[in-house]
Amino acid sequence: MSKKSDSTVILLLSCPDRPGLVASIANFVHERGGNIIHADQHTDLEHGIFFQRVEFHAWSETVDRNELAAAVAELAGKFGMQVRLAYSDERPRIAVLVSRESHCMYDLFARWKSGELPAEIALVISNHPDHADAAEHFGIPYHHLPVTPDTRPAQEREILRLLQAHDAELVVLARYMQILSPDFIARYPNRIINIHHSFLPAFVGSKPYHQAHERGVKIIGATAHYATAILDDGPIIAQDVIAIDHRDGVPNLVRKGRDLEKIVLARAVLAHLQHRVLVYGNRTVVFD
Amino acid sequence: MSKKSDSTVILLLSCPDRPGLVASIANFVHERGGNIIHADQHTDLEHGIFFQRVEFHAWSETVDRNELAAAVAELAGKFGMQVRLAYSDERPRIAVLVSRESHCMYDLFARWKSGELPAEIALVISNHPDHADAAEHFGIPYHHLPVTPDTRPAQEREILRLLQAHDAELVVLARYMQILSPDFIARYPNRIINIHHSFLPAFVGSKPYHQAHERGVKIIGATAHYATAILDDGPIIAQDVIAIDHRDGVPNLVRKGRDLEKIVLARAVLAHLQHRVLVYGNRTVVFD
Amino acid sequence: MSKKSDSTVILLLSCPDRPGLVASIANFVHERGGNIIHADQHTDLEHGIFFQRVEFHAWSETVDRNELAAAVAELAGKFGMQVRLAYSDERPRIAVLVSRESHCMYDLFARWKSGELPAEIALVISNHPDHADAAEHFGIPYHHLPVTPDTRPAQEREILRLLQAHDAELVVLARYMQILSPDFIARYPNRIINIHHSFLPAFVGSKPYHQAHERGVKIIGATAHYATAILDDGPIIAQDVIAIDHRDGVPNLVRKGRDLEKIVLARAVLAHLQHRVLVYGNRTVVFD
Amino acid sequence: MSKKSDSTVILLLSCPDRPGLVASIANFVHERGGNIIHADQHTDLEHGIFFQRVEFHAWSETVDRNELAAAVAELAGKFGMQVRLAYSDERPRIAVLVSRESHCMYDLFARWKSGELPAEIALVISNHPDHADAAEHFGIPYHHLPVTPDTRPAQEREILRLLQAHDAELVVLARYMQILSPDFIARYPNRIINIHHSFLPAFVGSKPYHQAHERGVKIIGATAHYATAILDDGPIIAQDVIAIDHRDGVPNLVRKGRDLEKIVLARAVLAHLQHRVLVYGNRTVVFD
Repeated sequence: MSKKSDSTVILLLSCPDRPGLVASIANFVHERGGNIIHADQHTDLEHGIFFQRVEFHAWSETVDRNELAAAVAELAGKFGMQVRLAYSDERPRIAVLVSRESHCMYDLFARWKSGELPAEIALVISNHPDHADAAEHFGIPYHHLPVTPDTRPAQEREILRLLQAHDAELVVLARYMQILSPDFIARYPNRIINIHHSFLPAFVGSKPYHQAHERGVKIIGATAHYATAILDDGPIIAQDVIAIDHRDGVPNLVRKGRDLEKIVLARAVLAHLQHRVLVYGNRTVVFD
Repeated sequence: MSKKSDSTVILLLSCPDRPGLVASIANFVHERGGNIIHADQHTDLEHGIFFQRVEFHAWSETVDRNELAAAVAELAGKFGMQVRLAYSDERPRIAVLVSRESHCMYDLFARWKSGELPAEIALVISNHPDHADAAEHFGIPYHHLPVTPDTRPAQEREILRLLQAHDAELVVLARYMQILSPDFIARYPNRIINIHHSFLPAFVGSKPYHQAHERGVKIIGATAHYATAILDDGPIIAQDVIAIDHRDGVPNLVRKGRDLEKIVLARAVLAHLQHRVLVYGNRTVVFD
Repeated sequence: MSKKSDSTVILLLSCPDRPGLVASIANFVHERGGNIIHADQHTDLEHGIFFQRVEFHAWSETVDRNELAAAVAELAGKFGMQVRLAYSDERPRIAVLVSRESHCMYDLFARWKSGELPAEIALVISNHPDHADAAEHFGIPYHHLPVTPDTRPAQEREILRLLQAHDAELVVLARYMQILSPDFIARYPNRIINIHHSFLPAFVGSKPYHQAHERGVKIIGATAHYATAILDDGPIIAQDVIAIDHRDGVPNLVRKGRDLEKIVLARAVLAHLQHRVLVYGNRTVVFD
Repeated sequence: MSKKSDSTVILLLSCPDRPGLVASIANFVHERGGNIIHADQHTDLEHGIFFQRVEFHAWSETVDRNELAAAVAELAGKFGMQVRLAYSDERPRIAVLVSRESHCMYDLFARWKSGELPAEIALVISNHPDHADAAEHFGIPYHHLPVTPDTRPAQEREILRLLQAHDAELVVLARYMQILSPDFIARYPNRIINIHHSFLPAFVGSKPYHQAHERGVKIIGATAHYATAILDDGPIIAQDVIAIDHRDGVPNLVRKGRDLEKIVLARAVLAHLQHRVLVYGNRTVVFD
């Protein structure tokens, strides 16, 4: 980490609350010549848990990343912290999983190409062959892995193999309409982001726009969440909604919902990539 | 209905769809010297139902209200219509039911006083004595009807008696936290508007803000609906939402939600009073 | 127009208000065997203008398009109407003009490819060479027409030539950052849709996100409007906004604004293509 | 400040940015036995200014308010800070100024009565006699100060006298339609909150709903800001918007806008009372 670097260091941490935490962490950064450019904290008073995101520039050359990692580990031990240490110049590798509907995939591609996502889209996996051309256009490897009830376990193993081969750290389910096994999900805890096309917890499961139409709601939504073993139940990262009315049949809900899905998924992916999301219990802290 | 009147006539109707309906209704109005100033229609293609709201000025003195009612009944018979015939100069009488939380009640009072509601607030009924002064300030009779599990049936009978005595046509549950019996509700079909403090169908029942906090949603909502025999399941008239984040504990949800509740309830009450709401099945058409 | 066709006929009309208009138009449709599936009207009481959009299925084979056009012309003459007659199975040809920023262009391409836009994207014109590959991927002709202050008139002539050669009926300025001459605009009245990255009329002209940041607003917006001779002053078709706060520097406004721009532009283009937009004076009626 | 107290201490500060600020302030609090329950900071990198809001519980009895004030003054001197030191158990006194339209006034009264505002409404001043009963109902002194062009200076002097006599710290212009003189405003810098019924900077001055209707916008807004010598130009605290369409004539804009005005004004007043607003230049930092 050189003096001239524009890159920043990010600490994302949680621990039992106690007096002096903010001062201890600020001193930790200050003693190493860091200048905090953004700090946000939250205390869950009910459960006595302290959460913080600290982002700082290093103003000296005396700190290298190995030393910092060791120092952070020591700090974490002292306070019983869970800490993630990250650098803004690292670019995590993303795997995008997609089925037939391509709007979220295209949206992620366009954002990535325009430089909006601090990440690499390492590969695309689909149970359909439809999007091979699109992936090629953007220069992203495309893997068509068809699946039937019988071949599901084998297909999942192949997905896992590809994720590892491509060194993917984040899996984005960009309207991937297959259910992943709990075993699969357990290998990527809080690293699989799904977009569900309803305002969860309303309309869990399949055909949420049909469910919404049936119930006669006046607003529809989309929810991005980390996948967990229970369907559509994981920690929510982002949600948004749009007004509808009686004129909107299911096809219109699908069309309007697509815009929500794209934006909500992108918002969640960006928050994750910027190390702004902390999970606790089944909920998230998403720092601004 | 004199020539000089600014009042308008409103037809709110539904019937099986068939060719020529719009023309027939437009001709019906035109032949009676009416000038349509607003017409909105909707066809549910799936179920083959036609819905329309027509509002017109009478340009002649040749039509009186009894004659018009008879003619409308004839038209309805011909097409198998359900029709509501209303006049903008009629002011329906409203009963407001409220428990401890007074924000929706105050909001309705202030809107009414400023002339925003084309109605009379005929009476307030509460299971608490707290709001007698407020009602008195606005010149509205206040009835304190305490209730316990034992006295519930008797209290409901007394409410019914008051509604009839005050000639109330619309019952607004402005955060009335008692459950009304199916028998009671059946006497005012699509004439009891409830405000539920969640984005239905999420978080049915009690303490929806606690449920929302527990689930970790990023948006909360409020829903105004006609009360039916099934709790929080009636046809939805209006909904709105507001973004929240991890910093918002339950007290903040309650505070932010109050603004939603006031606005969503007022919006639904106004739509009802302007004869813009048609119920079919468990859904509504709400004309603009 | 065969009996079996799913296509619909759309009349979009305006005329001086007078009694019986709705009946006359409904009868016109009914007499020709049409069944109205959607009708929406609006009367500007202040100026005495009647606006209507009527969409109908033809239920017989007795009407052909030439006959209908003649009959509509006769109706228009009788009532002093301006009428547009359109068919849902026609697919207007669109020219997309774009400069460096590609998000609106990509968004339109993806919507078009997914079948969301009832139109053909006939060509892309840009003053930069950057997007040739993207256009090729989607199979759309790409024309790079660089421009300098000196070559502006010639470049505009070449754009006009291309629009005519490709039979473009609608020009979409998808973040095209060159100002078009009044002469050019006059050739496509109410057929050039521009996206401006502010909540007009706030922040007219260049660098609206910088202006917004400078003023310290808490919400930013985007506006799609028909281009007129006066910059950023044409009839507004669609607007939307998003909340920001003090943490959002200009780069964040740009990023958040991009999502608005895409959605607002697409919404306006779709409304235009569905023949739901009527311009009068400097304002629009946009039927639902 | 006793150990058992639930009240909190709030520091709201700004100063030139430099390394170690967060640590210094956190240490300052920690050394005095305070436990930070909420801290939010912002650095304006462009101008090199650091902003922070720190809220803490005192965990010991060794600090009294005079001592703390002296210590904070010393800290401020060391870093060139501007600091506000406040306590959550203090209840500032508010003066509400209102003209004919009463919706914002009633809304503030109802919020205050329900305990939502940590303040006292000390008095109401109006150039109309209309709201005396309402003020009396809520137990608030009402001063009717009519004004004509000739009597304006005298009326303003009387307002000032009343503000001082009632010890008002915050002036809320709840749709007060008279322009206050620069001299008056200079006496309450960043302590006069105005609600303007447009999305500023669009539609400055009088009749903004008429202006909005004329321009044909598709969204209207409301803006709460600190009053400055330039009309409708002061630092913006809160804004919100609502969608409208061609059917909404000016009366509808007025009606829909009232809901915005109430909510936006209340949001700004609450942020001010919770010491979450910092002004710099003509902009605000509003901490969550």
